[in-house]
Amino acid sequence: MPVGLTEPGPLLPVAGVRLSTTAAGLRYQGRDDVCLMELAPGARTAAVFTRNAFCAAPVILARQNLAATNPRYLLINSGFANAGTGEAGMADARACCAALATQAGCGEAEVLPFSTGVIGQRLPVDKLVAALPAAASNLDGDRWNAASRAIMTTDTIAKGLSVQGTIAGEKFTITGIAKGAGMIRPDMATMLAYVATDVDMPADLLQRALEQAVANSFHRITVDGDTSTNDACVLVATGQGRVKLSAQHTVEQMLFQQALQRVMTHLAQAIVRDAEGAHKFVSIRVNGARDLAEADAVAFTIAHSPLVKTALSASDPNWGRILAAAGRAGVENLDQASVDLWLGGHLVAKAGALYVDYTEAQGQQAMAGEEIDILLDLHRGEASTVAWTSDLSHEYVTINASYRS
Amino acid sequence: MPVGLTEPGPLLPVAGVRLSTTAAGLRYQGRDDVCLMELAPGARTAAVFTRNAFCAAPVILARQNLAATNPRYLLINSGFANAGTGEAGMADARACCAALATQAGCGEAEVLPFSTGVIGQRLPVDKLVAALPAAASNLDGDRWNAASRAIMTTDTIAKGLSVQGTIAGEKFTITGIAKGAGMIRPDMATMLAYVATDVDMPADLLQRALEQAVANSFHRITVDGDTSTNDACVLVATGQGRVKLSAQHTVEQMLFQQALQRVMTHLAQAIVRDAEGAHKFVSIRVNGARDLAEADAVAFTIAHSPLVKTALSASDPNWGRILAAAGRAGVENLDQASVDLWLGGHLVAKAGALYVDYTEAQGQQAMAGEEIDILLDLHRGEASTVAWTSDLSHEYVTINASYRS
Repeated sequence: MPVGLTEPGPLLPVAGVRLSTTAAGLRYQGRDDVCLMELAPGARTAAVFTRNAFCAAPVILARQNLAATNPRYLLINSGFANAGTGEAGMADARACCAALATQAGCGEAEVLPFSTGVIGQRLPVDKLVAALPAAASNLDGDRWNAASRAIMTTDTIAKGLSVQGTIAGEKFTITGIAKGAGMIRPDMATMLAYVATDVDMPADLLQRALEQAVANSFHRITVDGDTSTNDACVLVATGQGRVKLSAQHTVEQMLFQQALQRVMTHLAQAIVRDAEGAHKFVSIRVNGARDLAEADAVAFTIAHSPLVKTALSASDPNWGRILAAAGRAGVENLDQASVDLWLGGHLVAKAGALYVDYTEAQGQQAMAGEEIDILLDLHRGEASTVAWTSDLSHEYVTINASYRS
Repeated sequence: MPVGLTEPGPLLPVAGVRLSTTAAGLRYQGRDDVCLMELAPGARTAAVFTRNAFCAAPVILARQNLAATNPRYLLINSGFANAGTGEAGMADARACCAALATQAGCGEAEVLPFSTGVIGQRLPVDKLVAALPAAASNLDGDRWNAASRAIMTTDTIAKGLSVQGTIAGEKFTITGIAKGAGMIRPDMATMLAYVATDVDMPADLLQRALEQAVANSFHRITVDGDTSTNDACVLVATGQGRVKLSAQHTVEQMLFQQALQRVMTHLAQAIVRDAEGAHKFVSIRVNGARDLAEADAVAFTIAHSPLVKTALSASDPNWGRILAAAGRAGVENLDQASVDLWLGGHLVAKAGALYVDYTEAQGQQAMAGEEIDILLDLHRGEASTVAWTSDLSHEYVTINASYRS
């Protein structure tokens, strides 16, 4: 059961983007497992990919193709990651792009491939290619919800959000979908996310908008510290709406960035809320750090601690484990006697020791709900950060001991 | 159930060390929870402590006292860690040392305190002090086995080993005990370990012997990546035997170091074999790294990966997760196309992709037993390392969701 997350409502079309989904029967039966997104000529595409050295064949190829030209198609499959497949996997990814290019009458490099699912098994290229005619003939602007379901693997719920806003009297739309579940961490956290807008903006502005939004969303989340081989986040600006952005640091650009941030933050948090075996959505804020790097080190060391995460799963206000995790985060000369800890707004530890007015009942209350807030103040600087994570439950173990990802 | 580990046989006395154990009823009922070790005058003591910035009061005090003088007593309690207790905790630790010093007629600084157990609760000083007369009046050289049981917390089995050897025709003895279970990782891994020998050696040689032995034992193990606030490893050389060591890099010193390494490696591996919820003992070797730091980064990233650890728990040869963990270890310019992976002696992935002759049956066989061997060759240098770890099981979650450590 996802934590505080329901099925997305109807996702809004973005002028210049058409989608289709097809059941190719790659691994899953009785559901769509291929998603095709068509971008109108003139659309600009920005992307960030996994930093894992063992990146998948489609990631390598998508990076190459994106560097070479403006993409016209995004071809996404679930069930097989096409990672750990070596040269054969590269040939498979190329074969899929080539088949679609022939079908659609575009260049091979104009297709970006994406895969999510099991590592180390060959992609069933024949099945995927056989599904392309159906995929190409059913493209429609109103298929974002179906697309959000077709890219799922161990996700239990689809993830998507549309936001509309107005800039200088003109309306614009942003729609995004994502899939996650496991192998989530800050180094390009989401497994797959696709966000499109009808705003017209130059490529460099688009890439900066994406990177800033990712820094405040997907790079803030972690489920288990494992970075996927296939992570990718794509932002498309079709330019078919009436809003045009041309420069950074303008009011117009800030309004767009705010709307984009809303979509990206929703999608990133949705991935944690639907994390494998999650029963809690946990916000870990760190204030008073000397710089962002040390704030992040403390926040993510707490977020990754199996002892903290099992305590969260049990609704146990085990604040000693939180301080112990902070203490091993590698912060130079961290003075335990100047650290304060709050759970759900209750001061638990002051100056590194149990606060005199703290009661166990307060701690129980802070941990009882599905949403848990942890705040640590290091009192040594001005930097702060937040990390969003889930608990470590029996269900997490069950899912990952049985699913071959 | 510990993995491939049985109760220690009779542990041998070390001339110059007397021990006693007492039931002070601090937290546990019906068992001994205080251990006192008396060191004869002239004994030399070396120690390494946790690197966690949130170290416990007894760790701070033991460090201070050890720097000031030669210890005569080690006072150990289980049940309460006396960590996260601030100035009050420091006063508690001092009060226990002072009470023992009065009782035994030694200086306060000649007592080293050690605590293991729950973080953030005050040590019941009155109960501990009330147990000291009994503790001091029952000292005996033959109580190592009882001591190994008195220091246990979530351990399911006592851990100890005695080794005897001969140097230049003279016999020497090394006896060690340890306790572990959770919060285990390379930065001073064991929670508590005490090793004593009757060899006569100068303090600097003793400290170097300890650090070298720890580097190859306790710093090789990890259960969950969490460093305890209370970790300590103590090596005592009483000098009451007939073997005398005076210099590094001699044959005599090497013979002693080998014997010490046997004891320390046994204790370190015993902690992993009895790790919380462990069903597997996993050796992760990394060869062909450019230096030890990058070999360790790969080995411990694999060892800490929840996705790898849950697959190990399920005896699932999920090699893709192992490569994915290696890929995010932060090794600069790691080329996936030059990495080979073996499971239990079977070549699984060659040059980053599935090896053509690998069969799923081979992988199943490699994972089926209680002892699992993973070998990764990066083919980019001469450095190698090993990490020992356990799997992540339902029992781990159950233990850590209920025990307040």
